[in-house]
Amino acid sequence: MKVGFVMGSDSDLDVVTPAVEIVKSFGVDVNVRVISAHRTPYIAEEFAKTARKEGFKVIIAAAGKAAHLAGVLAAYTTLPVIALPVSSKSLDGLDALLAMVQMPPGIPVACVGIDAGLNAGLLALEMLGIYDQTIAEQLIAYKKDMANKVIQKDKIVSEMFN
Amino acid sequence: MKVGFVMGSDSDLDVVTPAVEIVKSFGVDVNVRVISAHRTPYIAEEFAKTARKEGFKVIIAAAGKAAHLAGVLAAYTTLPVIALPVSSKSLDGLDALLAMVQMPPGIPVACVGIDAGLNAGLLALEMLGIYDQTIAEQLIAYKKDMANKVIQKDKIVSEMFN
Amino acid sequence: MKVGFVMGSDSDLDVVTPAVEIVKSFGVDVNVRVISAHRTPYIAEEFAKTARKEGFKVIIAAAGKAAHLAGVLAAYTTLPVIALPVSSKSLDGLDALLAMVQMPPGIPVACVGIDAGLNAGLLALEMLGIYDQTIAEQLIAYKKDMANKVIQKDKIVSEMFN
Amino acid sequence: MKVGFVMGSDSDLDVVTPAVEIVKSFGVDVNVRVISAHRTPYIAEEFAKTARKEGFKVIIAAAGKAAHLAGVLAAYTTLPVIALPVSSKSLDGLDALLAMVQMPPGIPVACVGIDAGLNAGLLALEMLGIYDQTIAEQLIAYKKDMANKVIQKDKIVSEMFN
Amino acid sequence: MKVGFVMGSDSDLDVVTPAVEIVKSFGVDVNVRVISAHRTPYIAEEFAKTARKEGFKVIIAAAGKAAHLAGVLAAYTTLPVIALPVSSKSLDGLDALLAMVQMPPGIPVACVGIDAGLNAGLLALEMLGIYDQTIAEQLIAYKKDMANKVIQKDKIVSEMFN
Amino acid sequence: MKVGFVMGSDSDLDVVTPAVEIVKSFGVDVNVRVISAHRTPYIAEEFAKTARKEGFKVIIAAAGKAAHLAGVLAAYTTLPVIALPVSSKSLDGLDALLAMVQMPPGIPVACVGIDAGLNAGLLALEMLGIYDQTIAEQLIAYKKDMANKVIQKDKIVSEMFN
Amino acid sequence: MKVGFVMGSDSDLDVVTPAVEIVKSFGVDVNVRVISAHRTPYIAEEFAKTARKEGFKVIIAAAGKAAHLAGVLAAYTTLPVIALPVSSKSLDGLDALLAMVQMPPGIPVACVGIDAGLNAGLLALEMLGIYDQTIAEQLIAYKKDMANKVIQKDKIVSEMFN
Amino acid sequence: MKVGFVMGSDSDLDVVTPAVEIVKSFGVDVNVRVISAHRTPYIAEEFAKTARKEGFKVIIAAAGKAAHLAGVLAAYTTLPVIALPVSSKSLDGLDALLAMVQMPPGIPVACVGIDAGLNAGLLALEMLGIYDQTIAEQLIAYKKDMANKVIQKDKIVSEMFN
Repeated sequence: MKVGFVMGSDSDLDVVTPAVEIVKSFGVDVNVRVISAHRTPYIAEEFAKTARKEGFKVIIAAAGKAAHLAGVLAAYTTLPVIALPVSSKSLDGLDALLAMVQMPPGIPVACVGIDAGLNAGLLALEMLGIYDQTIAEQLIAYKKDMANKVIQKDKIVSEMFN
Repeated sequence: MKVGFVMGSDSDLDVVTPAVEIVKSFGVDVNVRVISAHRTPYIAEEFAKTARKEGFKVIIAAAGKAAHLAGVLAAYTTLPVIALPVSSKSLDGLDALLAMVQMPPGIPVACVGIDAGLNAGLLALEMLGIYDQTIAEQLIAYKKDMANKVIQKDKIVSEMFN
Repeated sequence: MKVGFVMGSDSDLDVVTPAVEIVKSFGVDVNVRVISAHRTPYIAEEFAKTARKEGFKVIIAAAGKAAHLAGVLAAYTTLPVIALPVSSKSLDGLDALLAMVQMPPGIPVACVGIDAGLNAGLLALEMLGIYDQTIAEQLIAYKKDMANKVIQKDKIVSEMFN
Repeated sequence: MKVGFVMGSDSDLDVVTPAVEIVKSFGVDVNVRVISAHRTPYIAEEFAKTARKEGFKVIIAAAGKAAHLAGVLAAYTTLPVIALPVSSKSLDGLDALLAMVQMPPGIPVACVGIDAGLNAGLLALEMLGIYDQTIAEQLIAYKKDMANKVIQKDKIVSEMFN
Repeated sequence: MKVGFVMGSDSDLDVVTPAVEIVKSFGVDVNVRVISAHRTPYIAEEFAKTARKEGFKVIIAAAGKAAHLAGVLAAYTTLPVIALPVSSKSLDGLDALLAMVQMPPGIPVACVGIDAGLNAGLLALEMLGIYDQTIAEQLIAYKKDMANKVIQKDKIVSEMFN
Repeated sequence: MKVGFVMGSDSDLDVVTPAVEIVKSFGVDVNVRVISAHRTPYIAEEFAKTARKEGFKVIIAAAGKAAHLAGVLAAYTTLPVIALPVSSKSLDGLDALLAMVQMPPGIPVACVGIDAGLNAGLLALEMLGIYDQTIAEQLIAYKKDMANKVIQKDKIVSEMFN
Repeated sequence: MKVGFVMGSDSDLDVVTPAVEIVKSFGVDVNVRVISAHRTPYIAEEFAKTARKEGFKVIIAAAGKAAHLAGVLAAYTTLPVIALPVSSKSLDGLDALLAMVQMPPGIPVACVGIDAGLNAGLLALEMLGIYDQTIAEQLIAYKKDMANKVIQKDKIVSEMFN
Repeated sequence: MKVGFVMGSDSDLDVVTPAVEIVKSFGVDVNVRVISAHRTPYIAEEFAKTARKEGFKVIIAAAGKAAHLAGVLAAYTTLPVIALPVSSKSLDGLDALLAMVQMPPGIPVACVGIDAGLNAGLLALEMLGIYDQTIAEQLIAYKKDMANKVIQKDKIVSEMFN
């Protein structure tokens, strides 16, 4: 059981790192790559075509601007591809978001929010958790933990004003 | 193995129908519901909380405008929730897209394009196909079929101009 | 007479604080909470469902990104809910604004501008002032005070150039 | 107890009518006006300045394009003003939305969605219902009725597919 | 012959200053004011109503966010009102631009670019120059001077690379 | 005394016509032209360069898409140029608006709203009315007439609901 | 000498046809194809990789939504690729525009306007006309012809109003 | 063989420099100019009109805001004009992008991404490489080099996480 992480440029590393870390923290294997849909298209093709055979269950693709990476990988595999749009200097990531989420009929990607690395990782885990009971339980625990953190902050803030 | 389809209003039916049909055509059970995150919140909560136990593997949530449905369901389950933004009279669905895809850290949804019902269905099947070999093979066949249709249109158009 | 302030995350505190302060300065009780529509949905539900009984008259809900908090609270109460969209790193708060203001028919929220904490607080006071004569008079005084401050700045700037 | 409805042009009538109707159906008096912030500014001023004295509790202001009406009325009154942005031929109502919701600090309006007449009316009723027990109970009944309609549609749609 | 400059808040001063300076540099009298359409509406009304009688020929109105100032002044005068949208923390001034330029039929304003103080001043001078030969000639000289500055920069840059 | 109307294409005629008609109705001479900044640039240059000498007082330039016409004319004249952005099939006229209003420092245009032909004409008249007492009085009468029309509609609508 | 036209779907035919026709009318050979970057990625790769060898000089790629086609072809060739964004039901083609024009550093495409088929064809001809004297002269003649058509319309419109 | 670089203001220098450098590094002559479509229109006209005769093969035009430069040059030449939109303080370059890419039918420009200087230079080289075998081969080598750099980064990042 392995999740693939592909970023179009190493400048996307900061956005991808939380995705990798959450997946690793669940005990799932990761494979992290820099592959450009435009600069190394043959490698992108090869990666996607062999992904299922290589044991990948889900692929997370992060890219900015005219972000084609997720769509290009999705063209060569039937594994679910999670699209992680990365903001760049202009347009606040709206270009990457639209270039990823608006895929034409027949080739879907699963898009998360702009720069939302953590959510990309959690979504991959949810997909694994469809059948994997251990991951499903870890997700439930993770959710409880998040709730508890909010509850703690709630206490701090409540006392601050009231 | 069952996919849940939830729409916020029966006016979303036209967008959801292609999603239901593609999933059914793969021999996967479907359960199609009209549940409003705002008008029937208790039902939404109940549906999401019991979804895994009821045998659902994936949930597709379609909504328009300030589309909270996918996020609200995702709050109560650790199953993957596919968000299907529906365009309405104003703003071309950009409101629904942003209200769905930009989920805060910790609670992801898997967003597809505006009104992209078919892709929502296919993405659900890809998630099922992670472990289900039969569905994985059906997806490969579906992809070949799509390619063939493009090739046929290529022939027709090529002859038209050349 | 009490106004409830709910923020989706303690990172919204800077935006919410001016709302709390203006309401307190009018002598109205406040209750400030961190409750996430997605991470602590049961608490959100409980808060909204009991709000009227608990003596709340108005609820102010602040959230960023796919900001569902105001809508989720509005689903469980018939008290007026003021939606305060909070800007985040990308998209300048446009996502939060659309995710709040574009509520579907039947469940309204009262949306103020992006990061407009002061206005959220004043709007709550105006709602209380519909029947409460004291608050109505305080609002009139506040408005006069604002006018006087503009008039003073007018003098300073007029002399600067003329 | 009376709600004021002001539209900037009689072309906004279709959007305002559902607001008027829902308020009337709750047994609340209405006063419906065509007043332009730009073409009849003296009447706008007079209307807003005397609104509280005339028995108005809430004002709903509908306008399109560079929609100044709600802000202009809010300048002259401390009653809550509900802003109802109306879409026109270009820009899908985004201009009216931003021109209304982004009010500067000190003069809030309560903005609802683009063309969301029904929600404007319901929000007015919620404001009245802060203190008025009868309206509060009518709102609870209205909400139950909405839920029941969704439940009926849920049945129809569920049977259609399952 | 006098140009009126009105800003909605003294925070607009940096944007307005280049407008004032260019007008003064042409030997035209200026009157610079801080008047808020929302916080000091009576002063705004008075200023606009008496502007022509007071010897103003053109009014420049600068404001940010839901920028109503230009439109409100235009409601009370038939002098040309130049609208100068000011950017603020969120939305990059798009809100102010749309709230100014999209005026409803019958009450025009003359909108310049976001934060374009210099252009607002020059546009006022062009309006004065319709009949005033001296100003018309100064504008021609100003334009030549601008051209010469570009030509000088052209030389510097040309030599840098060629 | 003459106002020049230039449109980039005869497809802009519907938008320009109300501008021409209002100007003619005030007894001001008009000259209406189809001149493309891109397809007939020499004619555009010639028109703008000689406009003042030819007796033009103001130029109205209407264009769609990447609407350069107003800016190009403004480059060759110091007369005020009113920019009238025209919506086309895609982007709702936002492209034309930004391509017109965001002029670089030094060369202003006076932009009106998208497809706002009437306002373009009225703005031209306001510019003429700076010095021309007759036009100023006609504008005041026009404004009164508009107010009366609103008042009549106010009566009709008031009676409809009250 | 041959220009390649590739569209992602035969639904783009109406937009592509003017491009094909203008190129053919200049006596240049055309090859018109339906190739999907996502549904027939191997054919897209093959087409682009062999394009130069097959005698293509320029490629025009038309696609809608998350339009990856131009970028994918550009990844496999060093011929200039003209990107022709096609509008679809939602977002007015803004998605296709951004998904095409915002290419990452190193792999450019030459983007034209939304649905601007004619311009895509003319741009291809201009590229050919860099070295091809005949095409350069045909372009000059075409430009004169366009100018004449504008001049004729100018006459008609001028007479209409003056 | 010469490429012309024109920027509307020397503030565009940082964006243009990578374009100039890549073209020079291929051994192609460059001519870099500061010419404003609005401030030095006669020079712009002269430059474009004589460009082909002066030995230019391609023109790159960089400008910000209401960026007319590329379109104005394209009006006077049949050489391909590459439009390079430059972001400025507000609107993130969206204004420049739309003002450039949305050219009306008949006068195309070849638009690259916002601030995408390198891509503008490479696109010019691709146009030259249509017929020039040496440049075509250099482009292939450049592309290999880019791929190798991505591959090296891939190694570094892969080792970091795996």
